[in-house]
Amino acid sequence: MNYPNGITKNTTHHHISYKNRGMDLEGDLNITNEYYRNIDRAYIYKKPTPIKIVNVDYQSRSLATIKEAYFQEPSTTDYNGIYKGKYIDFEAKETKSHTSFHLGNIHKHQIKHLENVIRHGGIAFLIIRFSTLDQTYFLKATDLLDFISHNNRKSIPLSYFQKKGYLIKHKLNPRLDYLEFVDQILEVNHE
Amino acid sequence: MNYPNGITKNTTHHHISYKNRGMDLEGDLNITNEYYRNIDRAYIYKKPTPIKIVNVDYQSRSLATIKEAYFQEPSTTDYNGIYKGKYIDFEAKETKSHTSFHLGNIHKHQIKHLENVIRHGGIAFLIIRFSTLDQTYFLKATDLLDFISHNNRKSIPLSYFQKKGYLIKHKLNPRLDYLEFVDQILEVNHE
Repeated sequence: MNYPNGITKNTTHHHISYKNRGMDLEGDLNITNEYYRNIDRAYIYKKPTPIKIVNVDYQSRSLATIKEAYFQEPSTTDYNGIYKGKYIDFEAKETKSHTSFHLGNIHKHQIKHLENVIRHGGIAFLIIRFSTLDQTYFLKATDLLDFISHNNRKSIPLSYFQKKGYLIKHKLNPRLDYLEFVDQILEVNHE
Repeated sequence: MNYPNGITKNTTHHHISYKNRGMDLEGDLNITNEYYRNIDRAYIYKKPTPIKIVNVDYQSRSLATIKEAYFQEPSTTDYNGIYKGKYIDFEAKETKSHTSFHLGNIHKHQIKHLENVIRHGGIAFLIIRFSTLDQTYFLKATDLLDFISHNNRKSIPLSYFQKKGYLIKHKLNPRLDYLEFVDQILEVNHE
């Protein structure tokens, strides 16, 4: 199995375990995006994890070993790319909650980033998995921003995803066909 | 000064020194992109450096220290974003050569990436600085691909940049106004 972000198996703390599934959301999205690339439907990929490098050992020019580094708070989202000539941008998160998605999971910089993407004409959304319910939702970033501006709540209830979002079907290929909902956005924008 | 990629000052090996200028190409582009964001002209940023993490010390949940990691060969370019609703993608490189730009500076995966961006309707280009000449060129990715497919040479001569590329003016703000040439591409595409 190919671990995302270049993290090898001894750092298993990154992997969220949950019922009935062999793979986490990031793994599912990597496979989905690879499928989209292979059939040339879209060109979407995951960005590298932002890391602050503090100390590097340069034994030789080709073999530099990073000896001390830290995970950085992301200033952008994890995924972007192109679909039908449009700039696509999204963040993907899992929650173990049965009832709501905590907004603390999305950093302020990422919310600002989604606003910027929308303002400049890109298509921005979230993919949120309620892993214990085995449900994965597509939510337009405009609906996220709308919720934040009209609510003081620190979490988005599941009911908001059920009302405003779209349940992504789990299929064999593509595993999570989220572009189905991007097509709907493009159709609405085109009308 | 803000070091790009989260690299702090003790890792000065990353900084290429050259004549008559206080800042390298990456620094100039970071300032340029920040300026474009501040005036809300474009939303373009640098991706994190891809790093393969081998060993992480998890003392606490909030303080994970990466103890061993390596720089990875990039599979995409360094910069992307949105301008006038279009997907923008480019790679930036410096050379100390007075006469040519060695193609070994651009990885095969990056060339494939630029092809994918073009095929899906994005705008792709290179920004190449001949640092000893103090000249920075904008070259459309289509002209890079055209050169590669018609030549067996391992480097692109300066004359090709002079003929097919555009010399980017060094200004106060924006420091490297490369969007001027993206506008030209958009105008041609629109005709």
